[in-house]
Amino acid sequence: MSQQAVNGVSHRGKVLTLDSMNPNVKRVEYAVRGPIVQRAVQIEKELKEGVKKPFTEVIKANIGDAHAMGQKPITFLRQVLALCSYPELLEDNMFPEDAKKRARRILESCGGHSIGAYSASQGIECIRQDVARYIERRDGGIPSSPDNIYLSTGASDAIVTMLKLLVCGEGRSRTGVMISIPQYPLYSAALADLGAVQISYYLDEDKCWSLDVAELRRALNAARQHCNPRVLCIINPGNPTGQVQSRQCIEDVIRFAKEEHLFLMADEVYQDNVYAEGCKFHSFKKVLFEMGPEYSSTVEMASFHSTSKCYMGECGFRGGYMEVINMDPEVKAQLTKLVSVRLCPPVPGQALLDLVVNPPQPDEPSYTTFMKERTAVLAALAEKARLTEETFNTVPGITCNPVQGAMYTFPRITLPQKAIDKAKEEGQVPDMYYCMRLLEEEGICLVPGSGFGQREGTFHFRMTILPPTEKLKVVLQKIREFHLRFTQEFS
Amino acid sequence: MSQQAVNGVSHRGKVLTLDSMNPNVKRVEYAVRGPIVQRAVQIEKELKEGVKKPFTEVIKANIGDAHAMGQKPITFLRQVLALCSYPELLEDNMFPEDAKKRARRILESCGGHSIGAYSASQGIECIRQDVARYIERRDGGIPSSPDNIYLSTGASDAIVTMLKLLVCGEGRSRTGVMISIPQYPLYSAALADLGAVQISYYLDEDKCWSLDVAELRRALNAARQHCNPRVLCIINPGNPTGQVQSRQCIEDVIRFAKEEHLFLMADEVYQDNVYAEGCKFHSFKKVLFEMGPEYSSTVEMASFHSTSKCYMGECGFRGGYMEVINMDPEVKAQLTKLVSVRLCPPVPGQALLDLVVNPPQPDEPSYTTFMKERTAVLAALAEKARLTEETFNTVPGITCNPVQGAMYTFPRITLPQKAIDKAKEEGQVPDMYYCMRLLEEEGICLVPGSGFGQREGTFHFRMTILPPTEKLKVVLQKIREFHLRFTQEFS
Ligand SMILES: Cc1ncc(COP(=O)(O)O)c(C=O)c1O
Ligand SMILES: Cc1ncc(COP(=O)(O)O)c(C=O)c1O
Repeated sequence: MSQQAVNGVSHRGKVLTLDSMNPNVKRVEYAVRGPIVQRAVQIEKELKEGVKKPFTEVIKANIGDAHAMGQKPITFLRQVLALCSYPELLEDNMFPEDAKKRARRILESCGGHSIGAYSASQGIECIRQDVARYIERRDGGIPSSPDNIYLSTGASDAIVTMLKLLVCGEGRSRTGVMISIPQYPLYSAALADLGAVQISYYLDEDKCWSLDVAELRRALNAARQHCNPRVLCIINPGNPTGQVQSRQCIEDVIRFAKEEHLFLMADEVYQDNVYAEGCKFHSFKKVLFEMGPEYSSTVEMASFHSTSKCYMGECGFRGGYMEVINMDPEVKAQLTKLVSVRLCPPVPGQALLDLVVNPPQPDEPSYTTFMKERTAVLAALAEKARLTEETFNTVPGITCNPVQGAMYTFPRITLPQKAIDKAKEEGQVPDMYYCMRLLEEEGICLVPGSGFGQREGTFHFRMTILPPTEKLKVVLQKIREFHLRFTQEFS
Repeated sequence: MSQQAVNGVSHRGKVLTLDSMNPNVKRVEYAVRGPIVQRAVQIEKELKEGVKKPFTEVIKANIGDAHAMGQKPITFLRQVLALCSYPELLEDNMFPEDAKKRARRILESCGGHSIGAYSASQGIECIRQDVARYIERRDGGIPSSPDNIYLSTGASDAIVTMLKLLVCGEGRSRTGVMISIPQYPLYSAALADLGAVQISYYLDEDKCWSLDVAELRRALNAARQHCNPRVLCIINPGNPTGQVQSRQCIEDVIRFAKEEHLFLMADEVYQDNVYAEGCKFHSFKKVLFEMGPEYSSTVEMASFHSTSKCYMGECGFRGGYMEVINMDPEVKAQLTKLVSVRLCPPVPGQALLDLVVNPPQPDEPSYTTFMKERTAVLAALAEKARLTEETFNTVPGITCNPVQGAMYTFPRITLPQKAIDKAKEEGQVPDMYYCMRLLEEEGICLVPGSGFGQREGTFHFRMTILPPTEKLKVVLQKIREFHLRFTQEFS
């Protein structure tokens, strides 16, 4: 008898159950915060309660969360944010003049001169102007219009909104969206939620996770049998791969998008995170415009950026923007209407974004400190990228591509057949079993490759390179020891 | 010939057009930021450029945006936010000790002690604990668990997420959601976006916009012919009506929800905004629990709150929470997974929410100022609520219910038949024509009643009571004069 019946209460069951909820939501998966992270949180609680473990702390290398890994905020950014939060500080002389100037400018563009007012839904106009000027500088003068800039609640928000606009049709005419495998799982999650068709194209692990247009074509042609492919998503620099695309590759992709009549979504949130020698960030927009009017006036595109990554790593503020290019004006009006329903992106995040696109200039008092802090963060990341690749490649059974950019490594792991069988017994995919064991035995939290997608029969994990160098060395050493032990156990 | 053809470029048209975009998005409407507001922004630009108008500024009484209307932020809240943004200020002695204590506590619960780290997707745990304790105090000790609290990006985000979870089925089994008419248009917009069926129930204008269960039943029975009604949404205190529900009414609604097996969504973002004598805010949760276990252990519910309204009016921070009650644990796990896709709500907004639910206590240094500021805001709102009702009711052709709570008045306007005909000629609904004329002639921006829904043949507008008292008096006077002139013109 159910509890309710025992209480003598009439009972028809819940209104909202697993069976009666939105089926698309059920299909959503998001490994970066999945079961392994939940277990990590639990273990942290157990440690606090005094439960004995073979380690004293959990190191969460599962998510690109710089501050959580000990990276310090950039002074200038936080000074301006404090000034915007409590403008009485403008009277004080503890803050540099350029910080005050930026704060005044932001406040003047806010309703009632307060960051507590709603902004325009597309974002504060003067900040969109600053974003446009930033893009122009970045792209060597190619024009950018504030009308094409939409500020967002992190890049996540803009990506989901853009996908939502694009999805339509039923059955075989349902919108298909091409995403890389491995991918950042926001994409697969959003597509499941929207009921769109995911079209997977595989990056070439043997060629440093590069993108090959022949593979795009294979995936597209196969997909045409069962859906209407309309969108091509690219992440550059890559998450989880750490790959930085060559200019040539980007040109090929743009040509492909034009030929195949695809809307391009370029996720460029790691645009400042390029470390490897010979690698450079090329924005899709710049390449598009350099290919001439045949391309620059026709290929429809959205590019995404965020305050969460690069040198600032300000994830908690949820700042970001997208630039739309060649978007139909009527559709743009619909987009503006759609974003107005949620009123506006968080204003502190907008303010932060303004500082990122409009940093201190050489003649301003905050310049030296700002540059020193920025350079230190990026140099440390470059060093850790190198260290990670080198160390992993000394471990038999782990092979690791260079971490050219972004904040992750996605090494391939060879698992003994017996380990694979054991995982099956436990009802887990093999790389989840591996990562769970690593978590339980060493207190290191990674994300199994299956959370990002990988070629059938291959296994990987994703690790961020964000822990401080000394801690990263320990992490790499511990993974090394675990991997050898694990391999031995199942040989 | 198209521009592309002129350029000699091959052309297949855009990938993304009005015809090929998500049809649900096209159906979305959001009047609070609709065409009238766009025109207001344009007029502001014209004024700046020196274009002569019969007025010198546009007064935007279209949106509940307190700071934009000149309300000052509460000192304590902003001090703590500045401290969290730039923790170096903790060393300074310009801030009171209780502000520092709060800031330290928030920072300690952030990854890396930085509000720039992502938080748990459900929100920072210690803040969810504070929210739960706040709810317990508010509801006279009825228990609340932090596990049932989800922090959000404003209430908008939580409301949309909850609706998304609830929507399923196709054709006649598609989920139907009951919303009041007039409503806050987030609801109709979200339902259009999700492709859910909107079930309208009418509030009773003659009884001060109160909710009548007989009308709920009528609407429900009619809807059962073509959809599967599963959700009942209530806004209390009401937007746009300004109505505050009686305890009896809430009890009736809960009984109805139980009988009819409906999930209750209680939008209680105006819970501190109650002005009228004899009116009191009763939370749906408290009433539910006072009705005994037959109700409190079965009726499924979500309640929403926000940092945007009440005395703080901090809209730009996008803080908010929902509490879920009697939610199936499996569904809760799905909800947690779903919110993790967007990583987390903005952390500054979470911090702000923490201060709202955990304000200065009588023995703390900030208490006196905090209470003085809070009381002043609420007293001014109460005075403006009274003033608004009184003034409008002296105008022939305007009838206005008491503004018992929230921040709006939704008076009924009598429009001459000739004005209605004229509007038709211009291709506008009559109240839009009225509001556009008011905007052009007096520089006052209101939202036409049609944006919220109203009984066929009746006309209204929504005005916020937020302008400072002296300005509000001017606004009321100008509307009065306009209304008389307009009526005369078309008689
Ligand atoms: C490739 C990529 N895109 C988008 C995002 C979303 O970041 P946010 O929403 O914090 O801007 C991330 C976060 O890790 C990412 O790696
Ligand atoms: C009834 C009601 N619910 C929800 C909201 C959303 O507010 P926010 O998303 O700023 O919390 C509003 C805003 O005006 C409202 O009036």
